[in-house]
Amino acid sequence: MKFILERPVKKVPTLRGITVANLFFEPSTRTLNSFIVAERTLSADTINISKSFSSVAKGETLLDTARNIEAMMVNMVVIRHSVTGAPHYLARRINSSIINAGDGAHEHPTQALLDLLTIREKFGRIKGLNVSIIGDIIHSRVARSLTLGLRKMGANVVLCGPPPMLPEWFLQYGVQITHRLPEAIKDSDIIYTLRIQREREAESFIPSIREYRKFYTINFGKLKKYAKEGIIIMHPGPVNRGVELTPDVADGPWSLILNQVTNGIAIRMAILYLLSGRKEE
Amino acid sequence: MKFILERPVKKVPTLRGITVANLFFEPSTRTLNSFIVAERTLSADTINISKSFSSVAKGETLLDTARNIEAMMVNMVVIRHSVTGAPHYLARRINSSIINAGDGAHEHPTQALLDLLTIREKFGRIKGLNVSIIGDIIHSRVARSLTLGLRKMGANVVLCGPPPMLPEWFLQYGVQITHRLPEAIKDSDIIYTLRIQREREAESFIPSIREYRKFYTINFGKLKKYAKEGIIIMHPGPVNRGVELTPDVADGPWSLILNQVTNGIAIRMAILYLLSGRKEE
Amino acid sequence: MKFILERPVKKVPTLRGITVANLFFEPSTRTLNSFIVAERTLSADTINISKSFSSVAKGETLLDTARNIEAMMVNMVVIRHSVTGAPHYLARRINSSIINAGDGAHEHPTQALLDLLTIREKFGRIKGLNVSIIGDIIHSRVARSLTLGLRKMGANVVLCGPPPMLPEWFLQYGVQITHRLPEAIKDSDIIYTLRIQREREAESFIPSIREYRKFYTINFGKLKKYAKEGIIIMHPGPVNRGVELTPDVADGPWSLILNQVTNGIAIRMAILYLLSGRKEE
Repeated sequence: MKFILERPVKKVPTLRGITVANLFFEPSTRTLNSFIVAERTLSADTINISKSFSSVAKGETLLDTARNIEAMMVNMVVIRHSVTGAPHYLARRINSSIINAGDGAHEHPTQALLDLLTIREKFGRIKGLNVSIIGDIIHSRVARSLTLGLRKMGANVVLCGPPPMLPEWFLQYGVQITHRLPEAIKDSDIIYTLRIQREREAESFIPSIREYRKFYTINFGKLKKYAKEGIIIMHPGPVNRGVELTPDVADGPWSLILNQVTNGIAIRMAILYLLSGRKEE
Repeated sequence: MKFILERPVKKVPTLRGITVANLFFEPSTRTLNSFIVAERTLSADTINISKSFSSVAKGETLLDTARNIEAMMVNMVVIRHSVTGAPHYLARRINSSIINAGDGAHEHPTQALLDLLTIREKFGRIKGLNVSIIGDIIHSRVARSLTLGLRKMGANVVLCGPPPMLPEWFLQYGVQITHRLPEAIKDSDIIYTLRIQREREAESFIPSIREYRKFYTINFGKLKKYAKEGIIIMHPGPVNRGVELTPDVADGPWSLILNQVTNGIAIRMAILYLLSGRKEE
Repeated sequence: MKFILERPVKKVPTLRGITVANLFFEPSTRTLNSFIVAERTLSADTINISKSFSSVAKGETLLDTARNIEAMMVNMVVIRHSVTGAPHYLARRINSSIINAGDGAHEHPTQALLDLLTIREKFGRIKGLNVSIIGDIIHSRVARSLTLGLRKMGANVVLCGPPPMLPEWFLQYGVQITHRLPEAIKDSDIIYTLRIQREREAESFIPSIREYRKFYTINFGKLKKYAKEGIIIMHPGPVNRGVELTPDVADGPWSLILNQVTNGIAIRMAILYLLSGRKEE
């Protein structure tokens, strides 16, 4: 899929005549556009249904919405929904393939897969790597999916954040937990910073952004002082510059942030292709 | 057109190089997406212009908007507008083909055509069937277009609803009128339930939704008690579950509601094809 | 490009496999749809990112947004932004081609190019023509780009409008300035009227629309009395009928307003093609 994206003509007929509905009940442009580019690169047709989907506004249930979309001869549904488990609920009830593009604070599996691809491209492996995930763990579907993926592939995971954002029960995932950044990153191969989701009132979980900055923001000084040579920085975007990362860190040679974006297209192409049941010669 | 929709590759080049503008001045996703899927299945290009069309917001007249769209080399315009007759007004003034996707409380002809197709598929004919249309008749462009279509094709139509939603002057369409559900459905082959359009303040026409439920909601008990064996249930969607229909009725084997959705794509493909002037080998 | 638009099949494969992002931070449907039609006619894929781009709402910088779009393997970015110089800022920092679709009150170069094409089609030349631009000069990026283009091509330009909308420093562009309409149009070959941008509070610059009408609205009487035989009328749209122009003038045989719209598609196709680096056989 990456090879297709690097061609001068980024287009293959693989999913021609297949319709994908992008059903986004939460605002998104990053993930939505990543799916749209993936769909079009594979020549699928798309319909985009947003939060303001009038039938939902008119009181239609999620299941009725999905059944109606399916009756429009749609083959696959990409869904983002604020309710945990919404994609799974639909997947048990309709025949179209359902792709989870983020459900509540639960999971964001395509993000985890693109992150794993980015890591494997860089290191040639995932097993045995030390990955530190820093920030607002409890509200982050990215953290949850990535942790599950990394553990599955044999990486060691350290979660680090302010205590209200990192409860003890994350230990069940086979990870280490710390609230002190220096300890979290001292053996890391990769620092994965999470977005402070101001729009989700994450700020009510910390005394202030100023205090968060002091303890958890990754800046060049902390990198030099605490991290190993060759450290890699990742972030799912969009970055709050100066909160999760300072600009010198976000834009430095250690940053794979834009590689993650490109790999997002490739991963979503692969998922769409595999779920379509199509065979490419 | 239905045959095309059932192929593994749902795409024909029939309208390649033709541009269709979907000009929706009222919110819609159901009808709009149905047109979009129809257009893309036929390989037309589409531009979508919504209520928030900035030039309209900037004070441009409907005619100027349409002339500008036409000057963009658009071949066909699908229009939904809150004003009765808006599509007819444009059709007399611009050269592009105009398709009415709903004008005020006046007409919704593509809905009527898809309903007629759904009925004919089920019964093999339309002539002589007894169709009862139940609910908020006066606010319903669906009821008006469907009544005209059914009468034209030789079906018998009974209209039924609360008196403020069903004035006497509907008799001019050659229908029967009753305010009592049992009488309305006793000889019916098809019960066609209309949406209570809460967003259009239809509720001010009835004492309460609770009272509407008592007299007009179709539930399993009423079906068993008053309707014939083999009764068919239709609804233009989106369903207010528990208001027009109870879930057991909406999801039962007598329901053609999802068939209507699929037939909507096929009918709109046919209309676009016929108006395009293209000839398919 | 115009020849392609006049074919029965308005579609060429020239930009197949190229992705164009339409990044509109100000509302627009006229210019946006013109670009979309141009892109699709050339078979480019498009992604549309509007003002409500959630990542921008989430505090992402313009540069990060653009870098992310670029990382999605986008080849060209069409940008409209309320800040003067935003397209130039991006053009110096990312590799994708940037097309300015309007930046603040600064420039709107694709509008100027389509106007020049429209003028040359009509007169066979631009050099030596007398063009009068009437209205709210100071707020108009159209006026600025068109003036630069006309002067470059050797036309004579008269700017005319109420004093608060036409400061003296416009003289630097090598134009004549007057506040009296009869003087402005007496030798004109073309009267180019500008939109009074009510949505940008242009009205605070004039005592009232009523007074503007009296002195600057082009009506049939003023045309007959002050303009030459064969005068041509242009307007970038959307027209405030009765403010810049009366309907008889807007719809008369001297009006090239709809030709401008059609030429907008052709000019944008040409720009996209030239910037793509593609060679068409």
